[in-house]
Formats: sequence, structure tokens, C-alpha cells
Amino acid sequence: MAHSRGDTRARILHTAAELFQRQGYGATGLNQVLTASGAPKGSLYFHFPDGKEQLAAEAMALAGAEMAERMAEAVAAAAGPAEAIAALGALLAQGLENSDYRDGCPIATVALEEAGDTGPIHDACQRTYELWLRGLVEQFRGWRLAEQEAQELADLAMSSLQGALLLARVRHDTAVIHAVARRVGAMAAQAASAALGPIAAQGASDR
Amino acid sequence: MAHSRGDTRARILHTAAELFQRQGYGATGLNQVLTASGAPKGSLYFHFPDGKEQLAAEAMALAGAEMAERMAEAVAAAAGPAEAIAALGALLAQGLENSDYRDGCPIATVALEEAGDTGPIHDACQRTYELWLRGLVEQFRGWRLAEQEAQELADLAMSSLQGALLLARVRHDTAVIHAVARRVGAMAAQAASAALGPIAAQGASDR
Repeated sequence: MAHSRGDTRARILHTAAELFQRQGYGATGLNQVLTASGAPKGSLYFHFPDGKEQLAAEAMALAGAEMAERMAEAVAAAAGPAEAIAALGALLAQGLENSDYRDGCPIATVALEEAGDTGPIHDACQRTYELWLRGLVEQFRGWRLAEQEAQELADLAMSSLQGALLLARVRHDTAVIHAVARRVGAMAAQAASAALGPIAAQGASDR
Repeated sequence: MAHSRGDTRARILHTAAELFQRQGYGATGLNQVLTASGAPKGSLYFHFPDGKEQLAAEAMALAGAEMAERMAEAVAAAAGPAEAIAALGALLAQGLENSDYRDGCPIATVALEEAGDTGPIHDACQRTYELWLRGLVEQFRGWRLAEQEAQELADLAMSSLQGALLLARVRHDTAVIHAVARRVGAMAAQAASAALGPIAAQGASDR
């Protein structure tokens, strides 16, 4: 049945994404993915005929798309840029705490291992980051920020949260994520309030 | 001779640091380190009797200490926090460009692979980040920032530069590092100018 085939495929992808995230691409063997997912022997090459590279590229794309949905949910209720960035920080901090500091960014470990290369894994990681950034840019645009300003603030928010996630993971303490989100959020809120009108903008920058 | 022994040991450590940084801990085998460093067979276990874990912990500590020196040199000539953060960003961007986007942070790849664990590798990565942060905090303190403010700004600068380094590596474009450094630098400069005196501080926050 197509249904159970799809289940096996999805189970393999989710297991692979989790193992790659936690221990890296290089350290994760296909046999480990097979055993941990409980998939029948032979199903790996049936579903992923191009092997480990295809599996990793699809696992990163899937994990990235799922994270993009969680991010969109987290920021949807935000009243402004500061609240949106705080909500993203809380989402990342919660993921870290809930996994006892094992699950940070679903992409970063593999992205760092593969960043010098080109190929399907690198492309999947790059598309994932741009997907996340696009979501943030569109949120910021909704708060009247100009395209370039929205892009720069999204890059700043994503960079600082990614870096804070790394520090928090190494420290086993999420405080740095919330602190960084607060400061970057304040900056974004200031930019958004300046964008509301030339008088407000002048007030924020000149006084 | 002690001298040539030290050379072999240092050569192994530098080779290991480079391989771990570029391809990760899990994907790097001891035989590859031995071959790439040109060290005689048997020298690995002679110098690193506890094996790969000891080698990685010492390689991260060495690479981290060398980066700390380069960071200290880069910020030593800075006139203020904005210039210091720009100089750090330029240092990281240059390392990325000079290595054709292979060498980002010497620690991050291994730190992400090992962050869920405790043990000598995790400890070496954590100590390295705290060493880098301490250097920045001391610079910021020299510009009259209070200890807590200096710590928070150092966390923010380090987080945002680390995250920007990851984005830049994936994009094969360092523009994001410079853009993030400019914005975080401007924020740090504002905090430092506010710290110069209560009147200036009130001017920045209340008006």
C-alpha cells in the first residue's frame, strides 16, 4: 500500500534528521538509521536509491520545513518585531531544554560539516535557512519595514539566535537565548517604530 | 630530542584541528590525521594515549587559544566597541574567504556534534567560548561598560557573529557578517556612550 510505504519513508527521514542533528552526518551510519527507525532491511535503498547523500538532503529539507511551520506559528501571534523575536527565542530555548540540550538547530550541525562542499546536502541547508529568513522578512514587512531593512533585521535576528543557540547548548543554559532575543528585539522594535512615519523616525534617530 | 617531539605533537594537533573543523569529529578518522600530518606511525598513541577524544579536546583548546590571540590582536587597535566588533567580523570573514568557505569557527562543528555530551571535548569547547567572551568583556570594560552590560554585549556580539559566520558559510558570501557587525556595533557604541555619564545615559534612554 502507498500509505504504509509513505509511513516507512517518513519514519526513516525523521530518524535520520534526528541522528544527523545530534551527532552529525559523518558520524551517522546508514545501519544506525535503519535500526533506529525500525524500517525493514532494503527499504533504505528502495526509498533513497542515491544513498546517504539523498537521505541527508531530504532529511534536512523535511526537518527545515517542519521548523519553518513551528516558527511561523510562534511569530503569528506576535504584536510586533520584539515579540516575534522573543517568541522565536522561546521556541528554540524550549527545544533545547526539552531534549536535555541535545536538539539545537536541526540544520546547523550538518550545514557546518558540509558547508565547504556543493551538492544536494549543502543546497538543502541553504534553502532551509533562506526559507526561515523569508518567513521573518514577511512578518517584518507586515510591520511596515522596508524590504532591505526587513532583510537586514531578519539576518541579524536569525544570526544572533543561531549563535545564541550554540552558546546555550555548550553552556547547558538557555539564558543567553532570551537575553540576545531581548536586545535584538528592542532594536527591531525601534526600527519598526521609526518606519511608521518620518516624524517618529526623526524622533528615534535625532533626539 | 624534546624539540622534534614537540614539533610532531604540534603538527598532529594542528592537522587534527583543521580536519575536525572542516569535516567534523565523527567523520575524521585517526588514520586520516596521521597521514595528513605526515607523523610517524605510533606517534598518535605516544602523544595522545587516551586516543581520539584526547586528541580532539587538545586540538580544540589549541585552535581556540590561537583564535583568541588573533581576536585580541584584531580588537586591540579598536577605538571603541563598534570598531572592535567590526574588526572581529572582518577577521572571521577573512578566514572564511581565504579558505574558500571551508574554515569558519574552529570550534563550532565539533561543539555541535558533542554538545549533548559531557566530557573533555565538550569542556574544551565550552572553555574556548568563555575565553573568547572574556577577552571581549575586558575590552568592553575598558570603555566604561559595567560588568553585566559588558557581558551581555559580549554574548550578543559573539552570538551574532557566530550565527552570521554560519549563514555566510552556507551562502558562500560574507556580506552578512559585516552587516550584522555594523548593527550590533552600533548598539554597543550606544551603550558605551550612555555609560560615559548619567546625563548622556538619560539622553539615550529617556528622550
